[in-house]
Amino acid sequence: MPSPPRAGTRGADRVPQPASRRANLSRVLGHLRRHGPGSRTALATATGLPRSTVSALVDELISRRLVRETHSGAGRSARAFALDGAGIGALGVEINVDHLSVHGTDLSGQPLIERRIGYDTPRAGPDRAVATLVQVVRDASRQLAQLGAPVAGVAVAVPGLIDTRTGVVVLAPNLGWRGLPLAARLAAALPTGPWLLVENDANLAALAEYDHGVVAGTPDLVYLAGAPGVGAGIIAGGHLWRGADGFAGELGHLPVDPDGRRCGCGRVGCWETRVGLAELVRRVTPQQRYGQAGSRVPDPQERLAEVYRRLAAGDPVAQAAIIELGRWLGVGAAILVNLVNPRVIVLGGHFAALADRVIPAARAELTRLALAPSVAVCRLVASDLGFTAAVQGAAGLVVDQVIDDPTRLGRAAPGRQR
Amino acid sequence: MPSPPRAGTRGADRVPQPASRRANLSRVLGHLRRHGPGSRTALATATGLPRSTVSALVDELISRRLVRETHSGAGRSARAFALDGAGIGALGVEINVDHLSVHGTDLSGQPLIERRIGYDTPRAGPDRAVATLVQVVRDASRQLAQLGAPVAGVAVAVPGLIDTRTGVVVLAPNLGWRGLPLAARLAAALPTGPWLLVENDANLAALAEYDHGVVAGTPDLVYLAGAPGVGAGIIAGGHLWRGADGFAGELGHLPVDPDGRRCGCGRVGCWETRVGLAELVRRVTPQQRYGQAGSRVPDPQERLAEVYRRLAAGDPVAQAAIIELGRWLGVGAAILVNLVNPRVIVLGGHFAALADRVIPAARAELTRLALAPSVAVCRLVASDLGFTAAVQGAAGLVVDQVIDDPTRLGRAAPGRQR
Repeated sequence: MPSPPRAGTRGADRVPQPASRRANLSRVLGHLRRHGPGSRTALATATGLPRSTVSALVDELISRRLVRETHSGAGRSARAFALDGAGIGALGVEINVDHLSVHGTDLSGQPLIERRIGYDTPRAGPDRAVATLVQVVRDASRQLAQLGAPVAGVAVAVPGLIDTRTGVVVLAPNLGWRGLPLAARLAAALPTGPWLLVENDANLAALAEYDHGVVAGTPDLVYLAGAPGVGAGIIAGGHLWRGADGFAGELGHLPVDPDGRRCGCGRVGCWETRVGLAELVRRVTPQQRYGQAGSRVPDPQERLAEVYRRLAAGDPVAQAAIIELGRWLGVGAAILVNLVNPRVIVLGGHFAALADRVIPAARAELTRLALAPSVAVCRLVASDLGFTAAVQGAAGLVVDQVIDDPTRLGRAAPGRQR
Repeated sequence: MPSPPRAGTRGADRVPQPASRRANLSRVLGHLRRHGPGSRTALATATGLPRSTVSALVDELISRRLVRETHSGAGRSARAFALDGAGIGALGVEINVDHLSVHGTDLSGQPLIERRIGYDTPRAGPDRAVATLVQVVRDASRQLAQLGAPVAGVAVAVPGLIDTRTGVVVLAPNLGWRGLPLAARLAAALPTGPWLLVENDANLAALAEYDHGVVAGTPDLVYLAGAPGVGAGIIAGGHLWRGADGFAGELGHLPVDPDGRRCGCGRVGCWETRVGLAELVRRVTPQQRYGQAGSRVPDPQERLAEVYRRLAAGDPVAQAAIIELGRWLGVGAAILVNLVNPRVIVLGGHFAALADRVIPAARAELTRLALAPSVAVCRLVASDLGFTAAVQGAAGLVVDQVIDDPTRLGRAAPGRQR
């Protein structure tokens, strides 16, 4: 996976390293990650580096707790080395319209903690939401440290336009945020904390799908984030495709329905007003609609459970809403197919939860609207990552960053959580 | 510029070369192309290759007539080497709805021949059109050979979905072509001819813009091909972005107007039916409209000249049509801005010719429809490559292919034109 520009990077006790040494550390680490344990000789052969260089690199990676010695099985005296990372934590956090999610792993990607709570982010406002995020990061970091994996980095998934260089949320229409310097605000509240990254939620989910989803490794895929807000994360040629400013994939705010409803972004007839979870809830279970003041905020899974119940009971309003949603999903898919030409469109969030019911209508509309040869080669599939794809991608992004530049970890105290 | 999969490659008298040697020849050639003449020592330093290796590579490139010795100016005895290519031709050909274009250069990109003729491709039908193309390629090849630059390769620009691996035109709605094995048909008719590539016209135009257009080098740009058919060529992160099958960028066939007219692709309300040159001509100068049987086919520049005359004369029909075109151009631009996030949208063809009149309306609509922060960072600019951007990009693609793999040229008789 590619690494984005770094946002809000905070130095641990790093000695500046020549770029070539960083690159070589990353090569060794990347090889162990992809191909499993290997001896110094095997690593030298695979990377094309002299054996003496490999030895020094391996020693450094051991001192950074990224590599451990293991048994090669190939002979009595052969020493082999494996990616370790069990002692280093990667934390993904998502803040969305109606929930906060946490996903903590070690550096091998092994999940250690996972949590989702209902949270009314628009009602909280940016200040309270940031304070809550800080508390969530602190709690999760403490948990990970207790599990022996102090956090090396945190990536925050946000549904909006993100300047990934600075960690500023430029615009998150459904949260009501505009120009919020999220990385800086979090960094100020976590003074000795780990690095901070901020990234668009659909982009992170697309990275998670590409890494370990149902069509993992497909070099041209689009992930459709299904939540109150909707958006696309685009993997093109095996790389996350961010556009000139990191704003690519804002399918949710394409004008598709000139006679439609007003959107959270202020415009009329955005695709989101037709396919977003908020619209579905508004039509099917209006008593649970978003923006209702209430003592308890249902998380998206709970809201969907009620939609399911109505569908199972044969509620005609629910059935009509689902067919309509499928049709408009096809409209968006047609735009993607003609303009982006993905091999697969992965349906996330509520699109995945309702896949059996919406894909037929979507497929029919896609066939009607898009150029035939392009339709023939594009599949619509449901994600199996549920509502946690983005937060999984966030933790994965932290792992990628460490693999890309292992020198970002201090040698003595990785993560420096105290 | 990236190189695409090769279509219809026909071997010259090549000896198989190890990949590393090919790559090293390409490195030396690429360095001379980007940085100008250099000595063997300078080349060794720049490429990181041993001086003896560089000497052998330079000798081989000289034998392939890709490099020539020159004066370094740095000292009496210093020998320097420069990209040559004056004796090798690159031929771009475009076949579009209403014209055939030819652009021949040498390998340094120096234009040698340029020609455009009106041609009614849909009326000709695929067989006659292919026969005409063959004649055009033969004539142009003869001309280039007479100018001392026998053709090493030909790239054909086609407005449609192209399988670049096989050179098959999968679908070209405005030509009425479907499943036409163009590379194979041309190759069969040009038995001792050069390599053949087939590529989408907007993709090639985008490559030309990226290489030497008004915003050359901008890593995230979209080129909008303005012709009877319209489409987008997308440069993302400095690379042509083709999608999973080479079908990306089919903006022209996005459904934007459910109440609109029937499109050449069979669907209703495609963007092309609102902004294509055919639609403009139909409204403003219906007596010149496309598909009219006539003894002489006006080329797009002539059709535009009549539109200009009407506008200059204050014809209200023409003025209304232009404002309408500008507004719908903004609709397409908004889709690109939200989904692709380019730094610049380069307007080609008739969009460029009418830029002063259409950009204000397009900008207003773009501002109304797209997410504000994305609009703020995207410019609309007029191309200065006129209707020849695609065919220039086609010739440039051949040059790129030679630079990428100089061993594709025979040593004795580059291009093998006879």
